[in-house]
Amino acid sequence: MGELVSVYREEHFNAAHRLHNPAWDAEKNERVFGKCNLPNYHGHNYVLVVKVTGEINPETGYVMDMKVLSDLISDHVLQRFDHKNLNQDVAEFRSLNPTAENIAIVIFRILRPLISEHLSLQIRLYETPRNFVEFPVV
Amino acid sequence: MGELVSVYREEHFNAAHRLHNPAWDAEKNERVFGKCNLPNYHGHNYVLVVKVTGEINPETGYVMDMKVLSDLISDHVLQRFDHKNLNQDVAEFRSLNPTAENIAIVIFRILRPLISEHLSLQIRLYETPRNFVEFPVV
Amino acid sequence: MGELVSVYREEHFNAAHRLHNPAWDAEKNERVFGKCNLPNYHGHNYVLVVKVTGEINPETGYVMDMKVLSDLISDHVLQRFDHKNLNQDVAEFRSLNPTAENIAIVIFRILRPLISEHLSLQIRLYETPRNFVEFPVV
Amino acid sequence: MGELVSVYREEHFNAAHRLHNPAWDAEKNERVFGKCNLPNYHGHNYVLVVKVTGEINPETGYVMDMKVLSDLISDHVLQRFDHKNLNQDVAEFRSLNPTAENIAIVIFRILRPLISEHLSLQIRLYETPRNFVEFPVV
Amino acid sequence: MGELVSVYREEHFNAAHRLHNPAWDAEKNERVFGKCNLPNYHGHNYVLVVKVTGEINPETGYVMDMKVLSDLISDHVLQRFDHKNLNQDVAEFRSLNPTAENIAIVIFRILRPLISEHLSLQIRLYETPRNFVEFPVV
Amino acid sequence: MGELVSVYREEHFNAAHRLHNPAWDAEKNERVFGKCNLPNYHGHNYVLVVKVTGEINPETGYVMDMKVLSDLISDHVLQRFDHKNLNQDVAEFRSLNPTAENIAIVIFRILRPLISEHLSLQIRLYETPRNFVEFPVV
Repeated sequence: MGELVSVYREEHFNAAHRLHNPAWDAEKNERVFGKCNLPNYHGHNYVLVVKVTGEINPETGYVMDMKVLSDLISDHVLQRFDHKNLNQDVAEFRSLNPTAENIAIVIFRILRPLISEHLSLQIRLYETPRNFVEFPVV
Repeated sequence: MGELVSVYREEHFNAAHRLHNPAWDAEKNERVFGKCNLPNYHGHNYVLVVKVTGEINPETGYVMDMKVLSDLISDHVLQRFDHKNLNQDVAEFRSLNPTAENIAIVIFRILRPLISEHLSLQIRLYETPRNFVEFPVV
Repeated sequence: MGELVSVYREEHFNAAHRLHNPAWDAEKNERVFGKCNLPNYHGHNYVLVVKVTGEINPETGYVMDMKVLSDLISDHVLQRFDHKNLNQDVAEFRSLNPTAENIAIVIFRILRPLISEHLSLQIRLYETPRNFVEFPVV
Repeated sequence: MGELVSVYREEHFNAAHRLHNPAWDAEKNERVFGKCNLPNYHGHNYVLVVKVTGEINPETGYVMDMKVLSDLISDHVLQRFDHKNLNQDVAEFRSLNPTAENIAIVIFRILRPLISEHLSLQIRLYETPRNFVEFPVV
Repeated sequence: MGELVSVYREEHFNAAHRLHNPAWDAEKNERVFGKCNLPNYHGHNYVLVVKVTGEINPETGYVMDMKVLSDLISDHVLQRFDHKNLNQDVAEFRSLNPTAENIAIVIFRILRPLISEHLSLQIRLYETPRNFVEFPVV
Repeated sequence: MGELVSVYREEHFNAAHRLHNPAWDAEKNERVFGKCNLPNYHGHNYVLVVKVTGEINPETGYVMDMKVLSDLISDHVLQRFDHKNLNQDVAEFRSLNPTAENIAIVIFRILRPLISEHLSLQIRLYETPRNFVEFPVV
C-alpha cells in the first residue's frame, strides 16, 4: 500500500453576492451584515483550494491526477459559479445565505460524490486574501 | 529642491459589475463580452495602486504623507465603490462600460483635483491578479 | 446544530524587537541569537492569521462575524503591538524573549478570553514570509 | 516543560523533471502523464515548506533555531536538488517517479534522521502555486 | 479618439533550460554560468506578463480584449514553450542562450506581428520571483 | 550591439526605524509622523528591487550577471542595513529621516558607483506590501 499524502489544487472564480436573511427586516439585515447587505450586490475573486488525501498509487506516484481534479472542479463548480450572481443564479443559494462558510459547504457537497470514497476531501475558500474558511474541520 | 521620487499606495475594494453596451443587441453583447455580459452581474476584489510622483519635502522626507493619500482614496473612491454594484450604484458608470480601463480613468479623474498640481498621478488597477491596467500612459 | 467550520482573519502589525536572554552573557547571546541579538533592535512586518473554529449559526451563515473578530484583534493586539518596540513597550515581553513562538502564545492568551468558549482558537504568525509559527498545535 | 508550537521554514529550489513509468510503453505513459511525460524534461521553481513541531525551549524561546533548520535543508536537500535534473541527477529518483508526492516523501526521509526525535516533522511542497502536496498526513 | 491606457495579461509556463555558450570550453562555461550550466538542465515556473498600450475603443471600453490576448499567448507562446526543454525543443534557442533576457526578446518577436500595429507591446518575464526582466525598454 | 533590456533583482532586509525631525518639537513630530514617530522604534521587512538597464552581452545573453548584482547588494546594502536600527546604526540616517523615499535614495547612491556607467539603475523599495517608492523617476 502507498503512503498517505495530501494533494491540493487551487482554482478561481469571480462572482457577485449579497448577504441577506429573508426572515429578518431590512434594519436587522443591515445591522448584522453591514455593507455586505447592500441591495445591488458586490463581488469577489474567490480562490478555491481543494485538498484530497489518500494513498499514493505506486504505478503513477499520484494520489490523484491533478488534471482530473482540476477538470472536476471546472465542470461542476466553476461552470456553475464563475461570473455568476450566487444569490440569483446558483440554486443552492436561493434559500441559503452565500457566506464564505456556506459556499465552502456547498462546494464540498458538490465534489464529495465525484471523488473516490477512498480519498478524503477538504475545501478552503478565500473570499478575500484576508478572509477565508475551511470545511470540514479535521 | 528635493529629489523627484514616486510613491505608491495600495488599497482594495470589492464590487459587482457587468460589461454591456446598450447600443448593441443581446447577441452582439454576448459575442463581444462573453460571460462578462451575464445579466445578473459578477464581481471582483479590485486592487488599486495609486502612484504619486514629485519632489521630496526635505523637512519630512515625504513626497506626500501616505496616510493623507490613503484617506483621500478611502473617502473619495472606496466610499463610493466598495461593496457596490458599479453599473447601478456609481453615477459615472450609468453610461460608461465598467471595464478595468474605464474604472481606472474614472478613479484618475476623481483623484486628480484632490492632489497638489505639483505632483503627477498614475492609477494601476487589478481586476484579477492576471488582468490589470494603467492610466495614464507615461 | 450547524456544521463545524474554521474561519480565518489576517491582520498586520509592524514592530521592532531584539532576541536576548538576560541570564546569559553577551558572548552567549550573540552566539545563540546571531544578528537577531544586535543591541539597537531590528523589525518586521508581522502577519497575524487568527483561526476560529465552531458551528455555523444558521441565521447568519457565520461562525463568527469577521468584522467583530477584526475589531477584537485591532483593539487588543494591534493597538498594543503595532509600531511598537516589543521588548520595551509591551509588558508581556519585559521578561519573555519576543521570538515568533512567544509572540504567538502571548497573542493567543490575549484573545482567548475575548472569544466565546464554544469556539476554538489558533494563532499563525509570520515573522517573515519564510519564517512562521502556529500555536496551539492541533 | 515548554508549550507545543509548530515552526515553519520556507526554502526554494529550481529543478528539471519528467514523469515516466518505465514499466509502461510510450503510449500509456503519454496517456497517463500528458505533457509532463515529454521526453526532454521541463522544470519548476519548487517551494519547500518544512514544519517542525515541539516544545519551546524556555531559555531561547525557540522550538528550533530557524538558522539551523535552514542550514540543514540547504546542505541536505538544496545542495542535491537545486539546479539539477531530478530524474538523472538525484539517486532516489532513478527508479521512483518524481511526482510532487514522491519528492515530498524523499525530502521527509532525508530530513527525518537529521532532526531531534523529540520534534515531529512535516513537508509541504509546491510544484506550482496551484499544485502542492503535504506529507505525512496528520 | 479614446484615451491611451496600458493593459496587462499574466500567463505561466514551466520549462527546462540550461545556460551554455558553445563557443567556450567547459571550464569557462562553468565559471560564467555556475550551476545554471549544469549539463542535465534545471527548470523554472516562468511568469509572463504581456503589456499592450493603445487607445480605448469607446464601443467596448477595451484597449484589447484580454481573452483574445490570452489566446494569442497561449497559441503562439505557451503551446511552444510550456513543459518543454527550451534548449532542445524551441528552435529559437538552438543557437541562442535561453537567459531570461533572450527569452523575453524571443517572445516579443513572436507576439509583435500578431498584435495590431496601433498598439505598443512590452514583455516582462519572471524566471523566479526574485529575478525578472523587461523588453523593450521604454 | 545588443538589445536594451531591464533586469531586476529582489532582496530583503529587516530593520528598525523611527521618523523624526530633530528641528521640530515633540508635538509637531507626533502630529506629522503619527505612530511612526513613537520613541522606541518599530520595524519592517523591507523588500528591495534593483533594476539595471543596458545592452545584452551577446556572449552571455546577460545584461548583468544577477549573481554579481545580488552579491553587490548583499555586501554593500544588506550587510549595513539588515537587522539594524536605521536611525542609530546607519551613518547616512544620523541626520536624514529614514522614510522609504530617503532610504531608496541612499541605496541608489551606495550602488550607483559600483555598477558600470553603461548601465542605468533604479531602486524600488517596499516598506510594506501597500507602501512603496521608486527612485529615480524615469
